[in-house]
Amino acid sequence: MSKPSVPQGTRDLTPEVVRKRQFLLATLRSIFEQCGFQPIETPSMENLTTLMGKYGEEGDRLIFKVLNNGLNDPNKHDKTRSALENVLQGKNDVNLTERALRYDLTIPFARYVVMHQNELQFPFRRYQMQPVWRADRPQKGRYREFWQCDVDIVGTNSLINEAELLYIYREAFFQLAIPQIVVRINSRKVLTGIAQYCGAEEKLVDITTAIDKLDKVGEEGVVKELTERGLAETQIHDIIRLINCTALDILEQEFSSKNISEGIVGIKELRDTLAYHSTLAKTEWNNSEVKIDFTLARGLSYYTGIIVEVNCNDPRIKMGSIGGGGRYDDLTGLFGLKNLSGVGVSFGIDRIYDVMEELQLFPAEIAIGTKAMIINTGGDNELYALGILKQLRSNHIAAEIYPEPLKFDKQMKYIFNRSIPFAVIIENEEREQGNVRVKDFAAGTQIKMSIEELINTLS
Amino acid sequence: MSKPSVPQGTRDLTPEVVRKRQFLLATLRSIFEQCGFQPIETPSMENLTTLMGKYGEEGDRLIFKVLNNGLNDPNKHDKTRSALENVLQGKNDVNLTERALRYDLTIPFARYVVMHQNELQFPFRRYQMQPVWRADRPQKGRYREFWQCDVDIVGTNSLINEAELLYIYREAFFQLAIPQIVVRINSRKVLTGIAQYCGAEEKLVDITTAIDKLDKVGEEGVVKELTERGLAETQIHDIIRLINCTALDILEQEFSSKNISEGIVGIKELRDTLAYHSTLAKTEWNNSEVKIDFTLARGLSYYTGIIVEVNCNDPRIKMGSIGGGGRYDDLTGLFGLKNLSGVGVSFGIDRIYDVMEELQLFPAEIAIGTKAMIINTGGDNELYALGILKQLRSNHIAAEIYPEPLKFDKQMKYIFNRSIPFAVIIENEEREQGNVRVKDFAAGTQIKMSIEELINTLS
Repeated sequence: MSKPSVPQGTRDLTPEVVRKRQFLLATLRSIFEQCGFQPIETPSMENLTTLMGKYGEEGDRLIFKVLNNGLNDPNKHDKTRSALENVLQGKNDVNLTERALRYDLTIPFARYVVMHQNELQFPFRRYQMQPVWRADRPQKGRYREFWQCDVDIVGTNSLINEAELLYIYREAFFQLAIPQIVVRINSRKVLTGIAQYCGAEEKLVDITTAIDKLDKVGEEGVVKELTERGLAETQIHDIIRLINCTALDILEQEFSSKNISEGIVGIKELRDTLAYHSTLAKTEWNNSEVKIDFTLARGLSYYTGIIVEVNCNDPRIKMGSIGGGGRYDDLTGLFGLKNLSGVGVSFGIDRIYDVMEELQLFPAEIAIGTKAMIINTGGDNELYALGILKQLRSNHIAAEIYPEPLKFDKQMKYIFNRSIPFAVIIENEEREQGNVRVKDFAAGTQIKMSIEELINTLS
Repeated sequence: MSKPSVPQGTRDLTPEVVRKRQFLLATLRSIFEQCGFQPIETPSMENLTTLMGKYGEEGDRLIFKVLNNGLNDPNKHDKTRSALENVLQGKNDVNLTERALRYDLTIPFARYVVMHQNELQFPFRRYQMQPVWRADRPQKGRYREFWQCDVDIVGTNSLINEAELLYIYREAFFQLAIPQIVVRINSRKVLTGIAQYCGAEEKLVDITTAIDKLDKVGEEGVVKELTERGLAETQIHDIIRLINCTALDILEQEFSSKNISEGIVGIKELRDTLAYHSTLAKTEWNNSEVKIDFTLARGLSYYTGIIVEVNCNDPRIKMGSIGGGGRYDDLTGLFGLKNLSGVGVSFGIDRIYDVMEELQLFPAEIAIGTKAMIINTGGDNELYALGILKQLRSNHIAAEIYPEPLKFDKQMKYIFNRSIPFAVIIENEEREQGNVRVKDFAAGTQIKMSIEELINTLS
């Protein structure tokens, strides 16, 4: 018999990890609910046609496809064989795989909105927290099954929505107590304005792709890439100068001087978003700031307006963004529903988890399930102990009894290894007196007390 | 463009459904935690070898297999083609599919325990709530993706564990307020005893299989099936008589008269389990009872001791069991870890959901996300309204603002359709006076009040 294992890039979650993730997800959920977002869930499997062609060539390759069932039916053999030939050529064929595992939450959400458009009230605000699957090469911190968490509002152009999403980010990272959060904000319209300014609008994608790498390759690297992508020296000079503007007013003057209306609109949208946001902002949010950053580009091509990205700048943390999003004007157009504008952000659940773990931000108490375990000394003491167990639970105290009357030391060691903070000892003397003895591992004490006192101690 | 859809047998969950399921899962979770059970999660995909051969021939066929990635690599084409030929013959081949979707939570749990045996403290009590996938023919109330919820204790023979699981069932159905719950209990050892009694021990599987159908086919049907399975008339007579015994004592006398030790042990275990249970039982559990039922067989072959099954006997409900389980002595033996006894029960999440929906047991308040929506009248009123929104949220009131200053009636209709109970109206007059007007849809009133009064009204 071979040693049992799990597929490469997947993992079991231990009780400690599940509890911490639950804490993280529950915190986010309560904020979403308080801001009027509604939960939806979509199936793990989507029709392959729903997913294919939406994530680029590389994305398509990373989709996990599900083999059709019933292939042993002899009537289907020929079709299946020729379907395989297509698959061997890198194509898809519904005669071999009709279904695939969810690759992200964005495309299923667009599909959901289109399918349910007649039941939904627009504007529709939803949140969704579910696993996704990608056949990426596994590496440290990157799994083939991981969770995404998306928050979106569709069916409205108002920038109040952008401000609401900034609220959600800052409130979430405040409640999670993550330090040095910077929410960078920019507008795709500003980037378009910059491309127009230097007469290179047709190279907008080249420009955003290059700028998007600034964090990784530095200004010099961006200049190099822009040159390679065919921009002239003076154009590159303008681009670098404009993305380094430190204030809305300065860039606005530049746009006005050349009458770049798209850029001017972008500046106005940023200004309005920030005004809405500052009205909503709480004074206690001193762990985070919102910062305009004209160098922020974000790679995804479907963004059309405001874009944002969140980083934790604590020097102990070395990782990329832990959240991001923006406005998209035509996501549901992929499924035939045109002109439905939306804006959304996502939380990088696994990265946020890693940050909180690294900085030890999970509250200590969530690691502890059971508060007290009763030592089982057998005989008449056993039923007496079960009666006390019942009373503890009736008082909302998480408690267990060791199921067998093993040696005292063995039970004590078990309780210690489980990190259960209190052991309740009942031997004949305690039972006859209607008492218990309580060992408090943290305090190192062992005290005899009444059952009432026990309940008070553990409550 | 084709109309978007989801795969047959899968479904989108609307906000209302997600909230109700959350309520159900959270209720169960809190009970499990209070009883010292620890949460684990396993990957959605398991190695195909972990799953195959564990669920019988029919089960194997219903497993969703995941196509390997990278099949377009020309070096693999020949292997993949011959792998397909195996698959077409109904076999499995890792050159086409190495992985499969989880079919239940039992086998992954056994795999987990064996893999993590050196990190775990035994006895190990775990709960697990996750989706599973089966390629069953879809029909009303039966989906290809559905949730299971399992609670198990492994590494101990003590019947306190059986009593704890009865506690969990009754406490759960009490908290969920489901009426007329009957938890039937029996022991595989009693069934073995009955087979020995009538000299047909080698036909134990035939006997349990036949008895298992009593609910569906009635006593006459069971007699017929036992006859077909080769039992003699006198044997069948004995079986029917013994499974119809109404008390432990009576059946115990029968076993004693023929010195059937296995049966006597089974009776003793039932008696001890019930004694433990009644010490733990709460007086308020008047919606449920535990009932000995020697006709209870349960089909799964891995059970070896106490078995249980839960039904809701409310006449408005027409469905099978909503939970079940039992003791198994060698589940981890499948993966090479012998002699680890365990006992577990599962909750039929989807059926319990359906019962609660049918009997309208979900609390009304969980359907409502947002408590109040502020009508947007634009201009200066907009920022004023955002300030009030911030105050509501700071007071833990779930609130939204309509993002655009649309026509009053249109906003009001939206609020009504969303079933949001309160609309907050701010026009120039209210803003100038520092007030708001509040429409209470249920009461049909519209009252002017201060912001402090608004917070009190909505808290």
